Amino acid sequence: MEFTLELKNRINYIEKKMKAFLPEEVGYQKTIFEAMNYSLNAGGKRLRPILIMEGYRACGGLGEDFLPYSVAVEMIHTYSLIHDDLPALDNDDLRRGKPTNHRVFGEDMAILAGDALLNHAFETMLAYAKDSDRPDLHIRAMYEIARGAGIYGMIGGQVVDVQSEGQAIKKDKLDFIHINKTAKMIIASVRCGAILAKASDEKLQALTRYAENIGLAFQIVDDILDIEGDEKTLGKKVGSDIDNMKSTYPSLLGMKESKQIATDLIVKAKKSIGIFDSSDVEFLISLSEFILNRSN
Amino acid sequence: MEFTLELKNRINYIEKKMKAFLPEEVGYQKTIFEAMNYSLNAGGKRLRPILIMEGYRACGGLGEDFLPYSVAVEMIHTYSLIHDDLPALDNDDLRRGKPTNHRVFGEDMAILAGDALLNHAFETMLAYAKDSDRPDLHIRAMYEIARGAGIYGMIGGQVVDVQSEGQAIKKDKLDFIHINKTAKMIIASVRCGAILAKASDEKLQALTRYAENIGLAFQIVDDILDIEGDEKTLGKKVGSDIDNMKSTYPSLLGMKESKQIATDLIVKAKKSIGIFDSSDVEFLISLSEFILNRSN
Repeated sequence: MEFTLELKNRINYIEKKMKAFLPEEVGYQKTIFEAMNYSLNAGGKRLRPILIMEGYRACGGLGEDFLPYSVAVEMIHTYSLIHDDLPALDNDDLRRGKPTNHRVFGEDMAILAGDALLNHAFETMLAYAKDSDRPDLHIRAMYEIARGAGIYGMIGGQVVDVQSEGQAIKKDKLDFIHINKTAKMIIASVRCGAILAKASDEKLQALTRYAENIGLAFQIVDDILDIEGDEKTLGKKVGSDIDNMKSTYPSLLGMKESKQIATDLIVKAKKSIGIFDSSDVEFLISLSEFILNRSN
Repeated sequence: MEFTLELKNRINYIEKKMKAFLPEEVGYQKTIFEAMNYSLNAGGKRLRPILIMEGYRACGGLGEDFLPYSVAVEMIHTYSLIHDDLPALDNDDLRRGKPTNHRVFGEDMAILAGDALLNHAFETMLAYAKDSDRPDLHIRAMYEIARGAGIYGMIGGQVVDVQSEGQAIKKDKLDFIHINKTAKMIIASVRCGAILAKASDEKLQALTRYAENIGLAFQIVDDILDIEGDEKTLGKKVGSDIDNMKSTYPSLLGMKESKQIATDLIVKAKKSIGIFDSSDVEFLISLSEFILNRSN
């Protein structure tokens, strides 16, 4: 399997399907639709939507029941980026090589566009779940997303990250940030897909372990890329962790050790899903290697 | 029935029950819990939670199945106030006579506290719905809340409100703002309660009409109070609409006409729920009169 091509196909598929879920840019509140769509259509790896799809398919899910969830999770990821970029938080002008939402639509609209995307994520899932004959599964799947994105997940991690800027923190706090800010949504994504596919407990647990490992590895690699990455390939400034005096894996444990930990996590991730038929998790295996070796 | 006492009892009941749903203020992300609880506990009329309860009870609902929804809708209302008050939006220092969230916790935490409350509203409803034997009803109820709070509801209205500041707008646009920004969440609240109580279509429709009328009346009275209200009783500055050159019912139609329209809406609201046994909607009838005659 040519992984880069397989990934590209999936990104194209998600982006094409996503269009049907985006608000039409008409009506008095047109600006908010434009602001939402601007950031949703700004590219990215679509990692979380793809993880929902792969979790679903690995567990035997047929059809496209996962799609509203893939779109929803991307809306949540996008809202978190819009709010992170605001002047009161990271104050970033560029995101994926394009002006950030507030630079285009103003700070007021960027705040509201973030709110709108978060709310619309739930509206999108619920609108779909309403017509399902397995509402129980949909509630469990939505709960995973809500929990992963919330105060005991992504927002919780983001809060501690913001508060830790400019000061040295210890490894357990750094792990708290990485696990909550990044890994929890990655875990929620695969679990959501697996639940929708009526996965067995054994498969659900296996995928959970996989996601925990790639989730933490993803964030450690992020730390590494902020030092060794190429600004152009990344589409964002490098060195910002050092500029902001942020504790990271490399700053706490050194570069060599950090790379070893990331490598070990990916080995563990692959082992976790050994119970599946290898053809069902071929992409997930390659994806874990890509997360380790990625340059953006 | 002494309405003021009945209202106070309900406010106390909601506030007491709400405590069990609030995050405990421990852990690395403690600040966000404090920021959420600060604004949630800052008082207010608890109108939306009470409307869920009354919609539920009017349709024969027993027990407290509505409670997580009452708490969730108050979380959503509270998040919208926190974000409205931000410097990039209304830039308010006081809310209900207390310093606004960002004045106490900083702009970054206030943005995140708003996000956290919105997300936690859904997390709270889903956590409860997960264990229900009627997941279909819960999905319908949650969908009402999501829709009412979203881009075709509260956020949609807020966007147009923000964009209309400082310019004269026509009545259809003003109605769009009032209906979406305020009425839609009021409608969603009673409908949510009615759905959870397995209301008949006829009762659901009747309560919907009731809420549409009190919802618009509520906002017209808000416009009136911003001119004629007492700053101390209101707990916020008056005259802000004129200062911000905002079009309002009084500015477009005059004070006398605005009061007449509000009065007529309340008459219609009461008529809408004529199909109920009067004892089941006694509080809703009094509430509609209170909304018309309120001083805060």
